[in-house]
Amino acid sequence: MSNNTFGKSFSLTTFGESHSNCLGGIIEGFPANLKIDYALIESELEKRKSSSAYSTPRVEEDKVVFISGIENNISLGTPIAFLIENKNVKKQDYENLKTLFRPSHADYTYFCKYGINASSGGGRASARETVCRVVGGSLAKQFLSLYQINIESEITKIGQFDYITQRNQAEEALLQAKENGDSLGGVIKCTIHNVPKGLGEPIFDKLSATLAQAMISIPSAKSFEIGDGLESCKRLGSEDIDHWNQDFTTQTNHCGGVQGGITNGMDVVFSVGFKPIASIRTIRAINPQGEIAEIENNGRHDCCNLFRARVVVESMAALTIADFIKRAK
Amino acid sequence: MSNNTFGKSFSLTTFGESHSNCLGGIIEGFPANLKIDYALIESELEKRKSSSAYSTPRVEEDKVVFISGIENNISLGTPIAFLIENKNVKKQDYENLKTLFRPSHADYTYFCKYGINASSGGGRASARETVCRVVGGSLAKQFLSLYQINIESEITKIGQFDYITQRNQAEEALLQAKENGDSLGGVIKCTIHNVPKGLGEPIFDKLSATLAQAMISIPSAKSFEIGDGLESCKRLGSEDIDHWNQDFTTQTNHCGGVQGGITNGMDVVFSVGFKPIASIRTIRAINPQGEIAEIENNGRHDCCNLFRARVVVESMAALTIADFIKRAK
Amino acid sequence: MSNNTFGKSFSLTTFGESHSNCLGGIIEGFPANLKIDYALIESELEKRKSSSAYSTPRVEEDKVVFISGIENNISLGTPIAFLIENKNVKKQDYENLKTLFRPSHADYTYFCKYGINASSGGGRASARETVCRVVGGSLAKQFLSLYQINIESEITKIGQFDYITQRNQAEEALLQAKENGDSLGGVIKCTIHNVPKGLGEPIFDKLSATLAQAMISIPSAKSFEIGDGLESCKRLGSEDIDHWNQDFTTQTNHCGGVQGGITNGMDVVFSVGFKPIASIRTIRAINPQGEIAEIENNGRHDCCNLFRARVVVESMAALTIADFIKRAK
Amino acid sequence: MSNNTFGKSFSLTTFGESHSNCLGGIIEGFPANLKIDYALIESELEKRKSSSAYSTPRVEEDKVVFISGIENNISLGTPIAFLIENKNVKKQDYENLKTLFRPSHADYTYFCKYGINASSGGGRASARETVCRVVGGSLAKQFLSLYQINIESEITKIGQFDYITQRNQAEEALLQAKENGDSLGGVIKCTIHNVPKGLGEPIFDKLSATLAQAMISIPSAKSFEIGDGLESCKRLGSEDIDHWNQDFTTQTNHCGGVQGGITNGMDVVFSVGFKPIASIRTIRAINPQGEIAEIENNGRHDCCNLFRARVVVESMAALTIADFIKRAK
Repeated sequence: MSNNTFGKSFSLTTFGESHSNCLGGIIEGFPANLKIDYALIESELEKRKSSSAYSTPRVEEDKVVFISGIENNISLGTPIAFLIENKNVKKQDYENLKTLFRPSHADYTYFCKYGINASSGGGRASARETVCRVVGGSLAKQFLSLYQINIESEITKIGQFDYITQRNQAEEALLQAKENGDSLGGVIKCTIHNVPKGLGEPIFDKLSATLAQAMISIPSAKSFEIGDGLESCKRLGSEDIDHWNQDFTTQTNHCGGVQGGITNGMDVVFSVGFKPIASIRTIRAINPQGEIAEIENNGRHDCCNLFRARVVVESMAALTIADFIKRAK
Repeated sequence: MSNNTFGKSFSLTTFGESHSNCLGGIIEGFPANLKIDYALIESELEKRKSSSAYSTPRVEEDKVVFISGIENNISLGTPIAFLIENKNVKKQDYENLKTLFRPSHADYTYFCKYGINASSGGGRASARETVCRVVGGSLAKQFLSLYQINIESEITKIGQFDYITQRNQAEEALLQAKENGDSLGGVIKCTIHNVPKGLGEPIFDKLSATLAQAMISIPSAKSFEIGDGLESCKRLGSEDIDHWNQDFTTQTNHCGGVQGGITNGMDVVFSVGFKPIASIRTIRAINPQGEIAEIENNGRHDCCNLFRARVVVESMAALTIADFIKRAK
Repeated sequence: MSNNTFGKSFSLTTFGESHSNCLGGIIEGFPANLKIDYALIESELEKRKSSSAYSTPRVEEDKVVFISGIENNISLGTPIAFLIENKNVKKQDYENLKTLFRPSHADYTYFCKYGINASSGGGRASARETVCRVVGGSLAKQFLSLYQINIESEITKIGQFDYITQRNQAEEALLQAKENGDSLGGVIKCTIHNVPKGLGEPIFDKLSATLAQAMISIPSAKSFEIGDGLESCKRLGSEDIDHWNQDFTTQTNHCGGVQGGITNGMDVVFSVGFKPIASIRTIRAINPQGEIAEIENNGRHDCCNLFRARVVVESMAALTIADFIKRAK
Repeated sequence: MSNNTFGKSFSLTTFGESHSNCLGGIIEGFPANLKIDYALIESELEKRKSSSAYSTPRVEEDKVVFISGIENNISLGTPIAFLIENKNVKKQDYENLKTLFRPSHADYTYFCKYGINASSGGGRASARETVCRVVGGSLAKQFLSLYQINIESEITKIGQFDYITQRNQAEEALLQAKENGDSLGGVIKCTIHNVPKGLGEPIFDKLSATLAQAMISIPSAKSFEIGDGLESCKRLGSEDIDHWNQDFTTQTNHCGGVQGGITNGMDVVFSVGFKPIASIRTIRAINPQGEIAEIENNGRHDCCNLFRARVVVESMAALTIADFIKRAK
């Protein structure tokens, strides 16, 4: 019943706060006797780093160290534990926040739940924890490659703009937000190719339902749509039906490759919306006595986290599919 | 690891196919020594029945029989099992579908997964199973009433129309769809009042993430949004922040009462989009040999399932909150 | 996290009290497309009935009704729910116990936990619930027969006597106990033939550990021994080692077929000790006011439950092995 | 569904092999805002070290490092991860075992399951992993101290001797075994004082059943007895009943404080039997080609592991009780 574990047969358990010495995790269910693809892990972690002009200047080295479950680069079948040092910790950046609850952050809700807050930077609630998801996702991707399954993602919306057709306007808005110390959200679309038919465990662990949980568990995620999502909801039934081809593929893929919670062999497609991050330049925080004060936010944060969030979305997708493949056996 | 169980400390497990003799379920974690509110259960089941002109004429009696865990109307603390007879079964309606996979249904994916299909009407994938969710949800609502928590829902969109501001146009579209043997989807918004602060179990069992799973597990659900959802994703950070009041409430509730996956004491608000059901009058089905034929769909189905889906959404919300209350202890 | 579920990939969930209208359960993970072997289920249930002169005269008909997951005798892959009516209920037998806690029963502990007791006969704590384990075990045995795995058991001890070598004395002791309204316990040894190598999930879900949980969860079970058990503990290491044959079998099987929690291909062997049941003719019960009174125990009970317990032990063993086979995939 | 996690609401997850760089684990469910009692942890780890003349000379430093979930010695409510370095690794001791399966070890079964073995010393199957159980148990003991619950253990049997009444003979046997490069097992009895009434989750997660799983998961454990265990099985029912006192305590405690799987407020008492370890001086190992050869066992091992096993038994007991306390809430 661990709240820090995702997956049942292929699982990732994580630990660590944003500014503790280490974060890390355990991967279980990774097959024995596979050569670990470290290059893949590193390139995935690279994607999560400040990968655009709109990302935080806090560049972690993000070197992952594996401490169990692997010998001579070969998996043993036992739990694979890993650590990532928090090398670039600047607790002083958060010194003035120590007794303050920032607005639209988890400072206050963690305090309500636990009666205590980590000293700085969001603690367990920080998006810093997603680095562990990417390590887990990398191993899941390696596992999926045995099945020729691959995952890709793209940003489809930034703020009010369609990022495909209105790229210039979106870039303009990003520059503006950055200059103003403001932030922008958007939508990421993810496509999983070559998913076997028959994955998903109704009725509560439908593939779509578990993907929804996976995605909404990512910091700042606000919406999940399977297939055409809200667009489907606007159509007539006669418009939304995916008609058969004679080879059991469908002419359209409005459903996003999932029917009744089970894959039909078409691409699995879904979208995740992210709100603009709340760590903007000037915020009004509250202290435990109920006093509200305007403060400058010195912490290093993105003006738009979508560029870095793509690999996190893909990682959670990979973990989900890997788990269902193992559960289907 | 049951795929047919929702919840960890307050849980519902269900079983049954659309046209088997019975459906039913087991509720665990309901406190001992409570008088069961049968009137509430019946009124909730009533809401799920064909409650509008746009609902299926298959009106089940939906009489629930409790067979364990209750004595003299008082809960014993042991598992509460219940049955609902499928009285109004007309298997012959589905006779012509027996060897056909309907488009945009789960017939084919269940076949891919299990190598067999229930003889009629969707089997386990039918929305008929939601009757069990409503029984479980009724008991969850009774449990929540001990905490003065109550849940309400409304339809916010039907097809292309805002159901609040464009009610007439939406009704017109519904009539049209019904006449044409077509169907319409839409969006349901759900609000949970008086939720205690501090509920939710990061990082993977965030309240929002678990609600997402709960909702997307409902048949035909296509989208989940917490709080303002996709609207938030279009805003600047400076527009989306929920500013503090001095009593730790917030001036706005864009976040939907959840920050970092944990409740902040504001109303928990979320929306669920439903696609138009695929059981329209004329469909093109495929047989296992890959032959496609147009057939008339004699099964009794809704032209719009949102009216009946409201209580299902509420039920899953009630089960989710009940579970997190027990897990928080 | 259901406390009424055993197994993770092949699982049994049960419900029902000793004198409610029904008991029942749900089996998940049973493969689709198998013809149900009803004759096996009935013959297993028969074994659990009063099968000796020393068993209770309460003979339930124990007719099992399957209400979901099966169509035309073929499994659908969905949850298989079943019911067993409590036809032979004589609540009046327990009328004088209504406000009494019997000694060495669960009456008082259930009251401590739940603040309420079922009106008669042990409620959920009654050995009556084991009928559901036998139904689940029957389906597990059918599943295991696909792998040519079979399970057998024997009584090895009754009271102070070795039931193999001192059968006459044991029978004499049983007759004496029956005449005196007293009871006797003993030990059941169970052997599972043809178990595949490599089953078991270290480190906490070792095959041996899970068998231990399974067995000690049976009413009246007091001890669990894997392989030679306590006899092994008395030996020197040099005496207890199972030496290799060149085909990787071992010359002895002191370990009971499990090493490091994983099967080695030898027979899995374990023993379970049962205490004499506490329902003897005259008992001293206590009421909630702390008054102790001698009462005659009119309930129909065994003087020795080992004859009926054998099939329960086998059923739990079958469920355990079935689960580990599915988890190993 | 992690196999490396014990507990549901208060849980320990572990990782690491006997000769990897680190072992470690994660504790979840430890309350927030508690000051960590490091002295307790160290004194518990001390007990697990070679604490008698009969223990292995491999003395690990066993320094535990906490890497998350604690700040300024105060728990945050988030997962508490810890590491223990394997400082005293002598892989060369196992060099000659690299391609050999030792008798009565897990080398062969791990190979059957995973198709690969850790290079030395038992890998994940080594009793070295119990160091993580002791760290988890220490935190569980600290949690239990909030309820004034304390746990003690004693060795009751060594080999053929009662260690209480025949201490001299047992010591003699130990010396003899050590001299001969042989080994001895025995039995540990554990008593948990001041356990609240009403703990345990029938019907499968009975307190006794979960203790059984916990204990049999310990390396070399062969038997579990609750209360008087096998002694109870030899008695008449009239002899084994625990008669009431007027204050709802019982005159005897044959049942070991658990009735119907739930605590009754008396001491929880159980016994665990350990086989003599198989790492004796001269063993006959087999290679993958089926060739058997006598080898000298250079690894550093105990001649009797019971002295060190006591704290492991207590740790697993503490974890079990802590979990049930949290689940009872």
